[in-house]
Amino acid sequence: MKRTFIKDLKVCEEEKVSLRGWVHKIRDLASVTFVMLRDKSGIIQLVCTKEQIKGLRLENSIEVTGMVRENEKALGGIEIEAEKIDMVGKVYYDKLPFEIQGYKTKVSLETQLDYRTMSLRIPKKKAIFKIQNEIEESFRRFFKENDFEEIHTPKIINSGTEGGSEMFTVDYFGRRAFLAQSPQFYKQMMVGAGFERVFEVGYAYRAELHNTYRHLNEYISLDVEIGFIKDEKDLMDIEENFLRYMFKHLKETCKEELKLYDTELPDELNIPRIPLSEAQEILLAEYGKKSPVGNIDNEGELLFAQYVKEKYNCDFVFLTEYPTAKRPMYAMECEDNPEITKSFDLIYKGLEITTGGQRIHDYEMLKGKMERLGLDLEAFKFYLDTFKYGMPPHGGFAIGLERITKQVLDLSNIREAALFPRDMKRIEP
Amino acid sequence: MKRTFIKDLKVCEEEKVSLRGWVHKIRDLASVTFVMLRDKSGIIQLVCTKEQIKGLRLENSIEVTGMVRENEKALGGIEIEAEKIDMVGKVYYDKLPFEIQGYKTKVSLETQLDYRTMSLRIPKKKAIFKIQNEIEESFRRFFKENDFEEIHTPKIINSGTEGGSEMFTVDYFGRRAFLAQSPQFYKQMMVGAGFERVFEVGYAYRAELHNTYRHLNEYISLDVEIGFIKDEKDLMDIEENFLRYMFKHLKETCKEELKLYDTELPDELNIPRIPLSEAQEILLAEYGKKSPVGNIDNEGELLFAQYVKEKYNCDFVFLTEYPTAKRPMYAMECEDNPEITKSFDLIYKGLEITTGGQRIHDYEMLKGKMERLGLDLEAFKFYLDTFKYGMPPHGGFAIGLERITKQVLDLSNIREAALFPRDMKRIEP
Repeated sequence: MKRTFIKDLKVCEEEKVSLRGWVHKIRDLASVTFVMLRDKSGIIQLVCTKEQIKGLRLENSIEVTGMVRENEKALGGIEIEAEKIDMVGKVYYDKLPFEIQGYKTKVSLETQLDYRTMSLRIPKKKAIFKIQNEIEESFRRFFKENDFEEIHTPKIINSGTEGGSEMFTVDYFGRRAFLAQSPQFYKQMMVGAGFERVFEVGYAYRAELHNTYRHLNEYISLDVEIGFIKDEKDLMDIEENFLRYMFKHLKETCKEELKLYDTELPDELNIPRIPLSEAQEILLAEYGKKSPVGNIDNEGELLFAQYVKEKYNCDFVFLTEYPTAKRPMYAMECEDNPEITKSFDLIYKGLEITTGGQRIHDYEMLKGKMERLGLDLEAFKFYLDTFKYGMPPHGGFAIGLERITKQVLDLSNIREAALFPRDMKRIEP
Repeated sequence: MKRTFIKDLKVCEEEKVSLRGWVHKIRDLASVTFVMLRDKSGIIQLVCTKEQIKGLRLENSIEVTGMVRENEKALGGIEIEAEKIDMVGKVYYDKLPFEIQGYKTKVSLETQLDYRTMSLRIPKKKAIFKIQNEIEESFRRFFKENDFEEIHTPKIINSGTEGGSEMFTVDYFGRRAFLAQSPQFYKQMMVGAGFERVFEVGYAYRAELHNTYRHLNEYISLDVEIGFIKDEKDLMDIEENFLRYMFKHLKETCKEELKLYDTELPDELNIPRIPLSEAQEILLAEYGKKSPVGNIDNEGELLFAQYVKEKYNCDFVFLTEYPTAKRPMYAMECEDNPEITKSFDLIYKGLEITTGGQRIHDYEMLKGKMERLGLDLEAFKFYLDTFKYGMPPHGGFAIGLERITKQVLDLSNIREAALFPRDMKRIEP
């Protein structure tokens, strides 16, 4: 008999169905016995006999056949009169590590992650990944609709984008290789390879020596690179359009999940664009907050987000015109001021979720820049060579998938937005 | 002025357009000058003046404004009368490494890969990745339509799926970690985590010590795992349905690209399912070909594919009932014969593109099997623990994306189907 998902059960249909899932809750009363069945799509009440639930324990997986019945008092207005229950997945525990039904938030994040396949059974935890999936889906759709092509670039690489710091090393048949900290070089090269507009959804690796609520050592990067742009404003326009598209998509596809997190998504989005130096001045004037040279720190990001929220009623702000000294060698400098780059960060609710900008596209200019910075041209030959053959003006940006998920849902720790997070201490499960 | 892609240019529209792309060909005749412009979507003829093409070289990137004109003799029946040509991307070469327009197949694969951003400009080479993109797109669509969720599982892991052989090691903050050779454990765990039906598009890493036309050390695996199955036949049904869906999708979306490769895709698909031992007997009887114990070798795969093609008129064959001794510890054994597993391979035009099967889902059974094989239970605790909490019957399979691309197009080397292939000798570009 064909299996029906709980979400597809219809009220008022007096018909036999076959359901599958896990035992979410058992209520064994004097007169009647209820089992709450949980599958990937929802939860439904089964009305059972004492005989049928013999030996059944919480989190057993079962197959059920039964009749759909209307019942105003049941969740969703329907219930199943169980005809037959088969236990298909046994349990082997004395006590669950924590309750799934009736889950209390006092379970520590570490315990949740230790028992990841259990914590993901909690509907509210699972909802995070429905949202994340739809963010990714909207990303893919938006960029495909706009003539971008998806690419997959290598993660085992020979040299670092920014010179090899903070990179994991791999033993590659006796040679030292690295895990890519971003697809930066490769996505630029794909623009040059005639693909013009590319995006990638892929892992990025950062061997950063800090364990914080906002860092993962393995994270999913939504990367974009575009040829034939005028300048970095084109890039901010595209990212802003994507975000509008994404919020609309989330509202359409994740109504229930957003409710679980009491999250309100913006109906309109007009993101202010403020030069970094101006932001630093505002921070000093408004909050007495000093910033490091050529950047603002975490506290500054939070304060400035608060300022922007009050003044522009927006959760986002583009910080623009980062100084050349603080940006990678491939960043394009402004024509009228070589100390400033055509680059930007995007801050969302006080957290940087994007770095982007126009890149240098002229071979001589890039080579000169690398020489001035004392880089080993030979190590970057595979990248630099692309620029000999008519590289068009181009630029791009990247969005951290776990970071944007965290910010949409106001999660307190980025680890909640990764199925199996990797940090300095954790490589299991 | 808004940029128009060449594919969107319409016959009979007497209007000014803005085009961007690369100089594909220059024909400077006595009376008239033609430039063939190539963008990501196609090629178009520009009619230019001598003045306009001054300094222009092959592969320069340019921006063009001009009028669309009908011309029966031009490619696609239209051409552009150029009004203005701006060179936006300079070239720095004495001689191109090989011709883009008029590309001859005598350029070695190694040279093509050394100049990857140039070889990908060749329309026929670029077409491979359009096909690959649409295979991936159809995979994602088919499984989403069938209630599967996309997942991303970690690639930095603590222990190997099959015990740690043929794995790349990573220095993870002073600890030894590995690059995942498949998401096997994690996709099973996600079924157990209540997601039930999952798929992943992600890199898999194999430190195999052979450089062949069919191996990559970093490749893209299309992974599927499904809970609540009856047996491995469910899995073969699903994969077969996906392949039907994929071929239909490719026919709809890649007409031009398939023409470049003279590829005919099947209209109908009914894949024979033949036990391995039977295949071995047939090979011996029909071709005098001996097979290794519990497997068939590369030559055997090719011969058997030929046999199946003649007998069943099908490019695919499922080989079933692999012996337990030759399959990983998690493979489910047949109830009536524990020497045989409920597993299969899928051979496509003589190349294995899939391994799949039902997995053991009972905790005690899996633990017992691991003990018999002498595995360190502590190292697999993070995996085994999932099975304590009602793991349902489940199974899955994986398709190598580059392999299926190679076979669809009858490419001679799998490296052609990777943007930046990684093999024993190559980690650049």
